[in-house]
Amino acid sequence: MIAVDWGTSSLRAYRLDGAGRIRARREAPAGIMTVAAGGFAEVLEAQLGDWIDDTPIVMSGMIGSRQGWLEVPYAECPAGAAEIARGLRPIVWNAGRRRGWIAPGLSCRDAAGVPDVMRGEETQIIGAVADLPAGEATICLPGTHSKWVSWRDGRIVAFATAMTGEVFAVLRRHSILGRLMKEGDDQRDAAAFTAGLRRAEERGGLLHHLFGARTRGLFGDVAEDALPSYLSGVLIGHEIAALAPPAGVVHLIGAPALVALYSEALAAHGCTSRTLDSDCVARGLFLLASHLPTGETNV
Amino acid sequence: MIAVDWGTSSLRAYRLDGAGRIRARREAPAGIMTVAAGGFAEVLEAQLGDWIDDTPIVMSGMIGSRQGWLEVPYAECPAGAAEIARGLRPIVWNAGRRRGWIAPGLSCRDAAGVPDVMRGEETQIIGAVADLPAGEATICLPGTHSKWVSWRDGRIVAFATAMTGEVFAVLRRHSILGRLMKEGDDQRDAAAFTAGLRRAEERGGLLHHLFGARTRGLFGDVAEDALPSYLSGVLIGHEIAALAPPAGVVHLIGAPALVALYSEALAAHGCTSRTLDSDCVARGLFLLASHLPTGETNV
Repeated sequence: MIAVDWGTSSLRAYRLDGAGRIRARREAPAGIMTVAAGGFAEVLEAQLGDWIDDTPIVMSGMIGSRQGWLEVPYAECPAGAAEIARGLRPIVWNAGRRRGWIAPGLSCRDAAGVPDVMRGEETQIIGAVADLPAGEATICLPGTHSKWVSWRDGRIVAFATAMTGEVFAVLRRHSILGRLMKEGDDQRDAAAFTAGLRRAEERGGLLHHLFGARTRGLFGDVAEDALPSYLSGVLIGHEIAALAPPAGVVHLIGAPALVALYSEALAAHGCTSRTLDSDCVARGLFLLASHLPTGETNV
Repeated sequence: MIAVDWGTSSLRAYRLDGAGRIRARREAPAGIMTVAAGGFAEVLEAQLGDWIDDTPIVMSGMIGSRQGWLEVPYAECPAGAAEIARGLRPIVWNAGRRRGWIAPGLSCRDAAGVPDVMRGEETQIIGAVADLPAGEATICLPGTHSKWVSWRDGRIVAFATAMTGEVFAVLRRHSILGRLMKEGDDQRDAAAFTAGLRRAEERGGLLHHLFGARTRGLFGDVAEDALPSYLSGVLIGHEIAALAPPAGVVHLIGAPALVALYSEALAAHGCTSRTLDSDCVARGLFLLASHLPTGETNV
């Protein structure tokens, strides 16, 4: 089968054998934000046309959102592979000659009744936890919108999203904090990141600690080149203080550089971190497809 | 004398009599960001030329910053009117025929050694607290960069800045939260503001509660027109939870609409609020001028 993780900014595709092993992979900056409405089939054919034969195509991510190819309703927590697979929706193109499936996202409501959502991460998690022992686990997928997930007995029971990566980006680009920072790619500064983590543990709250990034820059306490790392430490420190368990193991899924930052932050907070396979989305899509009724996966 | 509060985006000027009473006032959108380097004397003459005779001109605000007319070093906490007045710096123009004074800003370091700064608010506070009884007081100046000030026995002993107003503005304009909000002026929605305040008291932290503004909008829990008020409630609620005292009186200085929001938020937090005169900057400048050595205020 072909597994496609089609997100906002990129498309990652995997060609899998009958046992779910990855035989080939492709990645393109062809995220849904780059595709005009009605243009999804054409982009998919352009990216994967030479792969497509009689194998089923199963997709997850923002491709199932209102801005995607077909809006697929959210499955609801608690949900494991079977419940999420039940929400898969078929999609046909080329006058019915091609057919694929799009996975649902997942929603939950917290104790106060406030909703939260994910699209794509649920499939990564399904794939990533296949190797974990039974019982409970905490999983974190850091990023633009970090996800903190409670896993129990084969199902996602609850989760919470933190806007950490996006808040970093808008403050870096559009606030007074960015004025002290140079344009262009940020250099990592390990000491400044650690100082930011430490600051997040002190009193005053995030909104005060953010202003402190400016004053520390103005007073030369933190070098200008190191300010992005300091800001990142403050934000990740606050995210972890609010959403990580007080101790125990956190399983991380994400890009290696970001996972390394979260590992350090979790260690400072008192947690141990373990890294899960970031290709887990291919395995997740394979597991979801295995729940489709026999015959349904053939075009 | 002439008292000038010259900030980033506007210039407010007052003509005072010998007892410090306001005889006339002017306001112009001639903040320092609109003035080219070297152009400050010209702008001041254009705004106040017909007022200027032999009266001293005393200024406070960002006009004393690196981007202003003359960078005046920060006074340091603890500081009252006498200590701040000691930092006044003279400025001359028109080939020495005109002379004015620029007030210093104020800096402090918290228990962890992290610096904080203000420019202009110290003068407002000096003027506003002239009527307060001796002892301790908490003063809040809400805004783009809200200031929380501890006042004791005639001096500012410490303060903390929260980037609340600016974080609201950049998220409103540049983040995914703004995509659900209409362009143009925001309407106040009292129920949504209160819901945002309540949310700030729940677990999950600010970065999670921000994402919740999006999901509540997506799920129709909060109407799109009401989302800016909800976001404002979440941010102000977090500011107050982190920086307000647990109980007691907080003195507010600021624009009436913003002061009303903070009064509600403080009441929900368990504090009583009292509003101080927002023309206090004129009185503060008058008090600072009264500390200048005799003869020094004449041009």
